[in-house]
Amino acid sequence: MDEREEFRRVAVAAREAAARLAPLPRAAKDAALHAIADALLANVPQIVKANEADVAAARENGISEYMIDRLSLDEGRIAAIAAAVRQVAALPDPVGEVVRGTVLPNGLELRQIRVPMGVVGIIYEGRPNVTVDAAALCLKSGNVAMLRGSSSAYNSNTALVGIMQAALAGTDVPADAVQLVPGTSRESVKHLMRARGLVDVLIPRGGASLINSVVEESTVPVIETGVGNCAVYVDADADLDMAVDILLNAKTQRPSVCNAAETLLVHEGIADAFLPRALQALAEAGVTVHGDERVRSHSADVVAATEDDWYAEYLSLDIAARVVGSLEEAAAHIRKYGSGHTEAIVTTSQQAARRFVATVDSAAIMVNASTRFTDGEEFGFGAEIGISTQKLHARGPMGLPELTSTKYVVTGEGQLRG
Amino acid sequence: MDEREEFRRVAVAAREAAARLAPLPRAAKDAALHAIADALLANVPQIVKANEADVAAARENGISEYMIDRLSLDEGRIAAIAAAVRQVAALPDPVGEVVRGTVLPNGLELRQIRVPMGVVGIIYEGRPNVTVDAAALCLKSGNVAMLRGSSSAYNSNTALVGIMQAALAGTDVPADAVQLVPGTSRESVKHLMRARGLVDVLIPRGGASLINSVVEESTVPVIETGVGNCAVYVDADADLDMAVDILLNAKTQRPSVCNAAETLLVHEGIADAFLPRALQALAEAGVTVHGDERVRSHSADVVAATEDDWYAEYLSLDIAARVVGSLEEAAAHIRKYGSGHTEAIVTTSQQAARRFVATVDSAAIMVNASTRFTDGEEFGFGAEIGISTQKLHARGPMGLPELTSTKYVVTGEGQLRG
Repeated sequence: MDEREEFRRVAVAAREAAARLAPLPRAAKDAALHAIADALLANVPQIVKANEADVAAARENGISEYMIDRLSLDEGRIAAIAAAVRQVAALPDPVGEVVRGTVLPNGLELRQIRVPMGVVGIIYEGRPNVTVDAAALCLKSGNVAMLRGSSSAYNSNTALVGIMQAALAGTDVPADAVQLVPGTSRESVKHLMRARGLVDVLIPRGGASLINSVVEESTVPVIETGVGNCAVYVDADADLDMAVDILLNAKTQRPSVCNAAETLLVHEGIADAFLPRALQALAEAGVTVHGDERVRSHSADVVAATEDDWYAEYLSLDIAARVVGSLEEAAAHIRKYGSGHTEAIVTTSQQAARRFVATVDSAAIMVNASTRFTDGEEFGFGAEIGISTQKLHARGPMGLPELTSTKYVVTGEGQLRG
Repeated sequence: MDEREEFRRVAVAAREAAARLAPLPRAAKDAALHAIADALLANVPQIVKANEADVAAARENGISEYMIDRLSLDEGRIAAIAAAVRQVAALPDPVGEVVRGTVLPNGLELRQIRVPMGVVGIIYEGRPNVTVDAAALCLKSGNVAMLRGSSSAYNSNTALVGIMQAALAGTDVPADAVQLVPGTSRESVKHLMRARGLVDVLIPRGGASLINSVVEESTVPVIETGVGNCAVYVDADADLDMAVDILLNAKTQRPSVCNAAETLLVHEGIADAFLPRALQALAEAGVTVHGDERVRSHSADVVAATEDDWYAEYLSLDIAARVVGSLEEAAAHIRKYGSGHTEAIVTTSQQAARRFVATVDSAAIMVNASTRFTDGEEFGFGAEIGISTQKLHARGPMGLPELTSTKYVVTGEGQLRG
């Protein structure tokens, strides 16, 4: 069987499993999640062995130690993955929630209720723990997971999915409810992207180029996630200590993630007071500043920013910095160069906070708080499948409800339309 | 300027207008809607003249009288269009609604609020009243409308959009908030479908082939609407009078619309009692029945159904009919052949109603009611931009809230992530 036929077989099995999974009550899904957690713990040697093959191949291919660390699994990490599955089991089930309900003038009872999406395709890179996390979140929300991880983790992912399917075989959840896209070729991703009618939604998790190629080629609806060129704007009226603390936290607390700050915008009215302190603190934290002329006038260490710097998602100890004439100029900069993820304003002015919130069109706006808070766990969702930077369906951190659709149930006693 | 450059100029103007329109309060938007209604009434002769050119061209091209009627505008119809705009003004503004709000353990105040999508592209056929309806719904929800109607209505649409833009010029809403995609070529639609970054969402309204081509080619997120192969399932335990009434209403009350019934599924336990009455009633209403062998055994007038009939959205006085062995067989038929729009069950059994609602995966499920009720007006939404048959973002009738996205506003006093 060639890869395309093999994909189709798996996708049809997923579609059929989705119809059986959707009506299952919470207890059945939670029992299946605990069975998965048990099975992961019971099969540590098998997972580690498969993972060693991936790690050995990665070393042969000269992959960086940082990437190898992300790829590696050991008993401790597998225990953490199993514990995360049990945490998902403990979350409320979004399916069946009545979102809206009313009685119409003709006596019809109208309810809009949450239902699973169906089959959710997830394309991701790197870490094999995502394989289990994503499967658990999909299963809890009544969805079948069609997983397409990095080819470098294919042995690990095959072992993990096999163990999950075997665990499900002893539960009310169909074993086909967790599926790995067969193969490691670039073609195998394309099969997933063209599987309209079999796959209900695709969530690509990764860099801008992965996400752009999925948006360009997919006929399955896509939720874009994760690209973050986040800005911190320091207003004319700002507490300078707070501004320095928020800037440092947003930039340096974890520079490699999408909610880290990549751009600093400073109102000209406060630039002379704020920039010397900010630049010194950034320098002490090892951050390279790419600034415009007015930022550079405060420190010889500031590198000249190019047009590319304003667009950059560095994911490193770098930041682009610019002095702006007004809040509106900051908003215009964000509109032009930003990725619509998270922007923060630091201000003591209630009016400025209101204007920033009303004018800046991003998934999350922070008023006097670090950009790093845009996160499903931090927002209290208990789990997160990704952070949407698009406006359709879900925007910002996506928890379990964002993995559902709705349907209308209308109950009558023979009503006809006149 | 060629058509592509002209499109880009219009789309960039739309994008800029969206940023100015989004923060406007309800009063400004309502005033603009009334200005549009006034302007339509003040310019009846200009609209009628432009429409006459479209109608004359349509007659020359041998268009059917039915289509010419849909295309035609006169003083009465223009007055009705203006009245509909005032009705939209009277609806509540969805923008700013707090969807979710809480205080996090660290004291951060989290609010998820409704915001406009931005620029909404609408591709539609036939009737020029949609030009004004869609513009009004977009404007009320804070969105810029990028309209692409039928080329056969281009003169009418150009006149209507020109009048709306002139009316907006005297209000707080930017005149560029209503835009017509320039040109009538097939290429002009493609510009709209490829305008990712300038257009936030595309809503195609029309037949299956239009919608499929948009889904295939668009890089802008799409909301599929309007294809309805709706089924009425008559359960083993059903009130026969009610079943006949619902079937007739669903099929014949307005056969040309998406929520009309196209398929009848009858439980074998009730077929001998129900089918003779149903077939007679359908025959008297002028409906041609395309049936399987068991349906045909009850009447010589029933035409033999082919595989295509089960998939058909007739939009005419035709219906496909089949006897099924169980509720589950009915659900499997709907899963295979249906379009996920609306399905009805007629039953006196509470258990059967529950199973049908849980098993059938469509945008709306009617229990003892006509499929014709799936409609924004009937559901009490006050207006409708279309009926979504996809699961992402909106499902079923879409009112003003479905034309919005959300953003998170997080307010603190210097919180940092630890």
